[in-house]
Amino acid sequence: MEGPASPAPAPGALPYHVAFSQLLGLTVVATTGAWLGVYRGGIAWESALQFNVHPLCMIIGLVFLQGDALLVYRVFRNEAKRTTKVLHGLLHVFAFVIALVGLVAVFDHHRKEGYPDLYSLHSWCGILVFALFFVQWLVGFSFFLFPGASFSLRSRYRPQHVFFGAAIFLLSVATALLGLKEALLFELGTKYSTFEPEGVLANVLGLLLAAFATVVLYILTRADWKRPLQAEEQALSMDFKTLTEGDSPSSQ
Amino acid sequence: MEGPASPAPAPGALPYHVAFSQLLGLTVVATTGAWLGVYRGGIAWESALQFNVHPLCMIIGLVFLQGDALLVYRVFRNEAKRTTKVLHGLLHVFAFVIALVGLVAVFDHHRKEGYPDLYSLHSWCGILVFALFFVQWLVGFSFFLFPGASFSLRSRYRPQHVFFGAAIFLLSVATALLGLKEALLFELGTKYSTFEPEGVLANVLGLLLAAFATVVLYILTRADWKRPLQAEEQALSMDFKTLTEGDSPSSQ
Repeated sequence: MEGPASPAPAPGALPYHVAFSQLLGLTVVATTGAWLGVYRGGIAWESALQFNVHPLCMIIGLVFLQGDALLVYRVFRNEAKRTTKVLHGLLHVFAFVIALVGLVAVFDHHRKEGYPDLYSLHSWCGILVFALFFVQWLVGFSFFLFPGASFSLRSRYRPQHVFFGAAIFLLSVATALLGLKEALLFELGTKYSTFEPEGVLANVLGLLLAAFATVVLYILTRADWKRPLQAEEQALSMDFKTLTEGDSPSSQ
Repeated sequence: MEGPASPAPAPGALPYHVAFSQLLGLTVVATTGAWLGVYRGGIAWESALQFNVHPLCMIIGLVFLQGDALLVYRVFRNEAKRTTKVLHGLLHVFAFVIALVGLVAVFDHHRKEGYPDLYSLHSWCGILVFALFFVQWLVGFSFFLFPGASFSLRSRYRPQHVFFGAAIFLLSVATALLGLKEALLFELGTKYSTFEPEGVLANVLGLLLAAFATVVLYILTRADWKRPLQAEEQALSMDFKTLTEGDSPSSQ
């Protein structure tokens, strides 16, 4: 039987891994900002620089904030489940709104410059990620927050929600890598092969993105770092399980 | 307590998911072959076509075979553990050898044409994947097959081995996506934006790669699809656990 009944101390190595993930995530955001600032002229809405809003918003929304939203159940281990759920949902709302601004920026930029839309693998993956993210949020919200599904339906859906949450996050990171590569090849062309500083910085950014995704995934998948059941959840779960299966409860 | 003592039937939906993963994996390999055959002049070692050996070998070795190697513990659920381990290790050897041919092909092609090496994000990720794959195989082999580590050391390393196995597979797929994008932009340039048939086919190949990775990851992470302990492993595990912890055993 897992899950102690009173606030349990976090596993020793968890805080260090979370701190490392945040350091990596913030470095990813800062490196993206530095790349756009130093080599692409910075950011503005009403000019050709509007395009630059796109990578920055996508990295902040669909990489950093989405990654952090997945970690709240590990970080806030001893808060009430509902508080953690609301924070998880809210972080996804912030991620969605920021990503939406990034999406509008690139479509608006394409329209003004007369560029075609949605022909590249990056754009196909991006639209897929965005649609899956939205559907996952809606289904998650209606199952776990409002109006909420029955205990047994939630228990059966939870593992699917967790898997697809991680899969959408990973697809977001892969899409970011494709976009980065596209932006590099469009701009640098054959100069990319001469180890231009911009190319090297962008390669480092790509490796940082992969490292952030790996650390987030590691924290999520460590079985002994999963959130323990709180006292009242355990009692509830035990009552329900005893009633329906005559079995003893186990967490997640 | 998990893990029945006698051969257990596979969970109902597992075979369908495995079949679907194989269908996707073979479609990925076939689509790669079709792309190289129809739009890139096919494959040969002693000509400019040598480059085309690279994507085909990488997709067969580091995507299809590596993905299948991860699935053997789910597919061969009731075989002796050692047989499954040997198959798992052997599939990785095949994957490694095929990937090595693909790696030699691209370096040899670059050398003959006078192209620079290792400047792109794709190449950096590729070298990283290849090195991690090799280290993971060596450590796995020495812990689990020969000479083999102690029971307690193996138990502690196993979750790390599983996590990094999945992470290396995912990074392989991400690297393949970056390479595909690179090959498209180098060849098609601005024609990519006019929905050239080659561009559309390659985009579909990219989505198929992402789908294959998702299905493999889904099968791997379903808790109730994990390989059950066999009778003799269970007895052994119970003896050991009782001796060392006075606890009842659980699988994985």
